[in-house]
Amino acid sequence: MGKRQTISFTRPPRIVSGMSVVGTKEGEGPLGKYFDSIETDPKFGEKTFEKGEATMFERAIVGAIDKAGLKKFDIEALLAGDLLNQCVSSSYVARGLSMPFLGLYNACSTMTEALALGSVLVDGGHFKRVACLTGSHFATAERQYRYPLEYGCQRPPYAQWTVTASGCSILASEGEGPIVANAVIGRVVDYGINDLNNMGAAMAAAAADTICAAFDDTGMDERDFDAIFTGDLGRLGAEIMRDLCRERGLELGQRYSDCGEMMYSRQQKCYCGGSGAGCSAAVLNSFILSKMKSGEYKRVLLLATGALMSPTTSYQGETIPSISHGVILEA
Amino acid sequence: MGKRQTISFTRPPRIVSGMSVVGTKEGEGPLGKYFDSIETDPKFGEKTFEKGEATMFERAIVGAIDKAGLKKFDIEALLAGDLLNQCVSSSYVARGLSMPFLGLYNACSTMTEALALGSVLVDGGHFKRVACLTGSHFATAERQYRYPLEYGCQRPPYAQWTVTASGCSILASEGEGPIVANAVIGRVVDYGINDLNNMGAAMAAAAADTICAAFDDTGMDERDFDAIFTGDLGRLGAEIMRDLCRERGLELGQRYSDCGEMMYSRQQKCYCGGSGAGCSAAVLNSFILSKMKSGEYKRVLLLATGALMSPTTSYQGETIPSISHGVILEA
Repeated sequence: MGKRQTISFTRPPRIVSGMSVVGTKEGEGPLGKYFDSIETDPKFGEKTFEKGEATMFERAIVGAIDKAGLKKFDIEALLAGDLLNQCVSSSYVARGLSMPFLGLYNACSTMTEALALGSVLVDGGHFKRVACLTGSHFATAERQYRYPLEYGCQRPPYAQWTVTASGCSILASEGEGPIVANAVIGRVVDYGINDLNNMGAAMAAAAADTICAAFDDTGMDERDFDAIFTGDLGRLGAEIMRDLCRERGLELGQRYSDCGEMMYSRQQKCYCGGSGAGCSAAVLNSFILSKMKSGEYKRVLLLATGALMSPTTSYQGETIPSISHGVILEA
Repeated sequence: MGKRQTISFTRPPRIVSGMSVVGTKEGEGPLGKYFDSIETDPKFGEKTFEKGEATMFERAIVGAIDKAGLKKFDIEALLAGDLLNQCVSSSYVARGLSMPFLGLYNACSTMTEALALGSVLVDGGHFKRVACLTGSHFATAERQYRYPLEYGCQRPPYAQWTVTASGCSILASEGEGPIVANAVIGRVVDYGINDLNNMGAAMAAAAADTICAAFDDTGMDERDFDAIFTGDLGRLGAEIMRDLCRERGLELGQRYSDCGEMMYSRQQKCYCGGSGAGCSAAVLNSFILSKMKSGEYKRVLLLATGALMSPTTSYQGETIPSISHGVILEA
């Protein structure tokens, strides 16, 4: 028996707008038509990939504010995090915005962590409108976590491809859009994986842990959802997720998809699919919100998934701890 | 006119216990007698400094839970962050605790960020007892942010010394201890400093911004507090903080101290004093809580201060953005 991990809101906030900004490869993938903005320059007009990533984040938040019919000044707080060391993309974007800023880090689970804490702040009446922002960039992540791009390192077939994408959701106490009915705060789970190319497997255990907590706490099960998404497990990780759930008596079936698996077609040769904090952030703020708006999805469970190791801990022989925070969205 | 940055709690949580774990140098400093645990082994019995840092964090949370007369299972969530890339000290400690985990990153302002968000969660009735944890380690920070220790790099006189310290506070909806009456969510401020040895100056601007927000929002001023602390500005940064406040009509006087300045005596040759997330975390959970318990302090404003750059952004020519989150504690 675990602790209660699910938060219910008495005044659930609404996602009044979402904005997705992606790179070329993501734009050419199966979800291309759903994304708001596709940028062909991997540096987003800047001199370095890192500055480009920050510019991508800025476009996401500015776009989300604009789509909500609001001005920057209407946003009362920013919750954001990213994969770069010291979460610099988020901090440098926050510098230009002059609003209360809460920096978060749960790797690729940061989107749902931000939605969870943002919802707690709005539900508590502390802020009326907050922005939840994250993303990732292929080139900055590769050179920070793995090898310089120029090195041309060979990858195993179960590797994933860090998406270049940013997503921003505006949560508000009033307005139109799906509500955040519940947030499920994940625990750190370690499946004993120490292969940095196999993070999908490591994170699948965390997603399975959180989905069980959500169902235990709420009394709901998989049949209560029109769609269930994990963040960036990739093809192999998603299969492991299905297996782990099956062992616990949950048959996810066709309603389950992984945002990383959805991001690229097989022809794009991205191995097992997309990864990165921008993966679930972009899919939520484009595809998922669009399907909720059209009425196709009434209730969705989104489980963004994060691997919490660092290059240093891996060199020191550690396994990969993972986490998955969930949000239950209702149209 | 800025936005409202101050959160008030209707059911303010109490800090029912605090634990501080420090290294030898900190134990030999002026606050030595206040710290709960002084460890002479810089690796805390582990093989690497990084694993030692995680062990220090673990001792802080285990000690805080114990001092509160609680068991691990009584703690319903952990809010934690640290200075290592990917916040691994926090994540690896969370792995062993099996409780909902929210990873935070606002550099050395993480202690007050955790107290702010932890208080929002307890005040909202979502969790009854949460742990707020952070820290820093001289050896891990030096080799990640600056130079290998063996290099023996010379420092300018205005440099600071990263403290080896961890602090943990247990927040609870019931029990004995000072309340968190308000939290002040900081904005990211950039004073134009690009010298990594002069972070005190960069962060002073953020602390001054947040203290003004706190006073504007609450109608209080410096005379309403028995003590006001900044996190880790050091001697030079604290002087700049006094000057910036004076320019805005606030005379901080004797009631103001900086935790970094307090940490070491001049004889310890730590340049301008201590820095690091563990600085305010350890001083809060030892000296400050002790003075509140004894009745010497009735109301305290703690402004932990964080510099949000990374080595990469500095190499790319960026200035240092900073943030300071505040908490108002009442006995």
